[in-house]
Amino acid sequence: MPQYKAPLRDMQFVLHELLKAEDHYAQLPAFSDTVSRELVDQYLEAAADFCENELSPLNQVGDREGCTWNDGVVTTPTGFKEAYQKYIELGFPSLSAEEQYGGQGLPVSLGNIISEMVGTSNWAWGMYPGLSHGAVRTLEHHGSQEQKDAYLPKLVSGEWTGTMCLTESHAGSDLGIIRSKAEPQADGSYAISGEKIFISAGEHDMAENIIHIVLARLPGAPKGTKGISLFIVPKFNLNADGTVGERNAVRCGSIEHKMGIHGNATCVINFDNAKGFLIGPENRGLNCMFTFMNTARIGTAVQGLSASEGAFQGALAYAKDRLAMRSLSGPKAPEKEADPIIVHPAVRNMLMTQKSFAEAGRALVYLLSFHADIVEQGATEEERKFSDNILSLLTPIAKAFLTETGSESAKHGVQVFGGHGFISEHGMEQIVRDTRISCLYEGTTEIQAIDLLGRKVLGTQGAMLKDFTKIIHKFVEANKDNAAMKEFVEPLAALNKEWGDLTMQIGMKAMQNPEEVGAAAVDYLYFSGYVTLAYLWARMALVAQETLAAGTTDVDFYNAKVTTARFYFKKILPRVRSHVEVIAGGLDPLMALDAEHFAF
Amino acid sequence: MPQYKAPLRDMQFVLHELLKAEDHYAQLPAFSDTVSRELVDQYLEAAADFCENELSPLNQVGDREGCTWNDGVVTTPTGFKEAYQKYIELGFPSLSAEEQYGGQGLPVSLGNIISEMVGTSNWAWGMYPGLSHGAVRTLEHHGSQEQKDAYLPKLVSGEWTGTMCLTESHAGSDLGIIRSKAEPQADGSYAISGEKIFISAGEHDMAENIIHIVLARLPGAPKGTKGISLFIVPKFNLNADGTVGERNAVRCGSIEHKMGIHGNATCVINFDNAKGFLIGPENRGLNCMFTFMNTARIGTAVQGLSASEGAFQGALAYAKDRLAMRSLSGPKAPEKEADPIIVHPAVRNMLMTQKSFAEAGRALVYLLSFHADIVEQGATEEERKFSDNILSLLTPIAKAFLTETGSESAKHGVQVFGGHGFISEHGMEQIVRDTRISCLYEGTTEIQAIDLLGRKVLGTQGAMLKDFTKIIHKFVEANKDNAAMKEFVEPLAALNKEWGDLTMQIGMKAMQNPEEVGAAAVDYLYFSGYVTLAYLWARMALVAQETLAAGTTDVDFYNAKVTTARFYFKKILPRVRSHVEVIAGGLDPLMALDAEHFAF
Repeated sequence: MPQYKAPLRDMQFVLHELLKAEDHYAQLPAFSDTVSRELVDQYLEAAADFCENELSPLNQVGDREGCTWNDGVVTTPTGFKEAYQKYIELGFPSLSAEEQYGGQGLPVSLGNIISEMVGTSNWAWGMYPGLSHGAVRTLEHHGSQEQKDAYLPKLVSGEWTGTMCLTESHAGSDLGIIRSKAEPQADGSYAISGEKIFISAGEHDMAENIIHIVLARLPGAPKGTKGISLFIVPKFNLNADGTVGERNAVRCGSIEHKMGIHGNATCVINFDNAKGFLIGPENRGLNCMFTFMNTARIGTAVQGLSASEGAFQGALAYAKDRLAMRSLSGPKAPEKEADPIIVHPAVRNMLMTQKSFAEAGRALVYLLSFHADIVEQGATEEERKFSDNILSLLTPIAKAFLTETGSESAKHGVQVFGGHGFISEHGMEQIVRDTRISCLYEGTTEIQAIDLLGRKVLGTQGAMLKDFTKIIHKFVEANKDNAAMKEFVEPLAALNKEWGDLTMQIGMKAMQNPEEVGAAAVDYLYFSGYVTLAYLWARMALVAQETLAAGTTDVDFYNAKVTTARFYFKKILPRVRSHVEVIAGGLDPLMALDAEHFAF
Repeated sequence: MPQYKAPLRDMQFVLHELLKAEDHYAQLPAFSDTVSRELVDQYLEAAADFCENELSPLNQVGDREGCTWNDGVVTTPTGFKEAYQKYIELGFPSLSAEEQYGGQGLPVSLGNIISEMVGTSNWAWGMYPGLSHGAVRTLEHHGSQEQKDAYLPKLVSGEWTGTMCLTESHAGSDLGIIRSKAEPQADGSYAISGEKIFISAGEHDMAENIIHIVLARLPGAPKGTKGISLFIVPKFNLNADGTVGERNAVRCGSIEHKMGIHGNATCVINFDNAKGFLIGPENRGLNCMFTFMNTARIGTAVQGLSASEGAFQGALAYAKDRLAMRSLSGPKAPEKEADPIIVHPAVRNMLMTQKSFAEAGRALVYLLSFHADIVEQGATEEERKFSDNILSLLTPIAKAFLTETGSESAKHGVQVFGGHGFISEHGMEQIVRDTRISCLYEGTTEIQAIDLLGRKVLGTQGAMLKDFTKIIHKFVEANKDNAAMKEFVEPLAALNKEWGDLTMQIGMKAMQNPEEVGAAAVDYLYFSGYVTLAYLWARMALVAQETLAAGTTDVDFYNAKVTTARFYFKKILPRVRSHVEVIAGGLDPLMALDAEHFAF
């Protein structure tokens, strides 16, 4: 079983050397006095310690035991509850919450960075505190003062947890067709009825109360997405003094048997005239939710990064240790009965692929997290707006591309282990199963692709894309005379231009038939993902080369960065060629077959 | 849960219309009098009935219950034993075995065709009778008359089952380093000692006896692959009259907890001075095994085909039924609250991908199975030799490419179901888990790739490849003036030429450094797989077009074939472009990083 080791050196490289975290925080009024490098590093180290020593050992326990449901009561795996208590004691739940409710008022980005470590060591566990963030943010932004006072302190401290009760069995991502109802009551509350599914951490034994944020329809609400309101529905109603009172009519009907994340309870939650409270304006529930869509999706992108990192760690250790066959160019460990499998090019290809996805994925998540900081705390409206655009464009890319590449990395993890990869004790197959959900929830890859190409790119007549390709263009221009960067800058420049051309071509076709957008979207997303990571690899290569040129004792680390960038450009980036050709194939080959003639 | 429906119409298309099964069997002396279309169709229908009604309902039961181990005794899931009894009663175990031992003497190909149905409906179950084939074939080809008489009748009837005990914990695919020992005894038998792992169907409650075929070393045997011998080791020793006698010193030490195929017992088998009998010549055990390597690998290729077919069936039914969102070109089912998801191009893309892999995969498996028939029963040495070459070349392609595309199809199955795909009851995630092993056992994808490029293609100076590209060339030449075939023939001709050029390029590089073969092999395998399926799709399109031109009442079926071929050429085949570019990237980007510098 793989023991997680937090990649602190690489995290610090991305934070401090690539993205200049200190400068970033110094420019944000809310953090300029409080967030120093020492503070950041201190949090990272505390989180690393907790994840390596508390969460990682529980990862396989959670998978093996799963959660158990008994007449509405859900019991989490051995050790989960105790780890959660420790997490509270260490103050992690309150990290980025507002100070007036007991939060530490630290940047969102710091939370995301820590969530990679939590997620890689034990994703299923991490979802219990993770889901609370959505509830906290909803309350912070849309709750009345009374609601904030009643719920936030306990949610922020971690004593209570929260959920997001959105979809229903028939609805999936199509929230416009949900049916749960909210009937106004004489006391100003609402009677909530309906069945919600896929409620992560919807019921468990880790906290005293669970605060559900629920989407439901008011009587006579308009059909579709414009008739949905948001409600707070606690598992236990609160007494007048704010303490936990009697049980509300909220019940966990069952938990799902699923492919992975067994340690997290995915609940069917039944509301049977449960007492609820409207949060935000009537019929604007989805808008309120959308406020946090980007944050939630970056959170899911982290799961992809975690899968790449976790699978890489496991596969690397095994590939250095396991002996099989001889190198095609002659024995590399002649004293042993076979060579360690890391000598074989095919094994190295898988390891380098995982490594290049994990490290650039980390850079992308941090970059987006910094933009999220600016959206919330930027000094000027202009800065906030610009970061919001970049965030809106890159979030579907990060969500879909990092989760898909995370799944690919997980697959390589199994493959490096050979037959042993299929065996549970080695931990590799669990990563495949656990991370598979990341391509589905918070909007599937296909939905992210439509969001990217339809809404963000074509929906803004290319303006949002141009904001980002300009950044790449600037980077390319700044380095075009740097001979050492030529191998990266030239292909990046060409692809950056091609990104615009490709968009134009699809846009022209879409004017004839809007379904061309649907036909091109997934390949367009992959193209965008590969180019985005190429940009980040080029930037990382530049930092490494500059550091090497300036002199450093850490030569191996920086050389490895340049080598990995080179691998990415030569062995991963060519994948865009297929996506471009598939896009050129257009819509017709997909639509020509009548639905009734798919099978006979 | 998806109910399996045998794709008989498509199976008959491939068998009779594409590959002219009657002509094929008529040309083989062993079958010319016995195997008619009626007989073949009768077997297919009987197998379809059994698979749909007996095996398919047990597929999820097997996954959920798994096998249980208790002090060396293994219990299979509910219903498995009874289904096996029915399978025996229906006479399936004896299908392609020799008649003198109670077999029906039917072609190997018929067995493979039926194994697709068994495998798609319940792969884990199918491995119990499936593993017996290896033992039967080993005995048929290498056993003494006495051994044949003792073991074959009961194995052929299915009363006993067989296993192949090859690898050990430290060895994986590197069988040259196995350590199990065989000590000659005074009575001419051998005392076998060692621990074998990954023994599928190694212990169970379905048969009276289990006949293990075991690799072990004789005292003083040469090191490596040339010092391994093959032994028969029964679970129960036989009495003088051939009945089951006392227990041999063979014990199932444990069963593996694994990602999938839970219904099949993957055993650790301990031999503790067990009584065994040499089969075949001393130290030539691996050579004896290699006789069936191609057959076993086609068997695994079937698992990939099964995954594509099973995931396609599940996803198609769901996509036609499930309502979500509206088509981007306006409502297609305005009377419903949303459109069925099959209207969305991204969903169709996944379905068409599965369909194109399943149908061309079927064609490839049948084609190889026919060549396997010829290798065993061909009228002339020349025919047998030619088919052996084609089989040797195409087997690693079929094994690796169909299992990888099967895994891709399974992934799409989950994705079409959205969040529900992650939930066990829908059956989609089980296919992902069950089929994952197919890319690992019988030689991983990476090992198949080296076998293809290193051994088969470059190892014969391109001769084996030329045998196949000539066949494609002939097809291209014969149809170059057919305007309706232009869209298929032109790209196929270009890729067929490119296949040779690409091989030449890699061959040149490999002369400088043999590791270039390892660097290129996996991408080369994918390239070869896509082109091979393109050839089969072009052939299927031709048959369909000719049938349509000649007039048929089955217009929709043949039109669907042409449409799917077109999809394959426009939307799948362009993937070769990336593989060609990645191959051009060469070895250096993979080897540049020191093994110690992968992580810091």
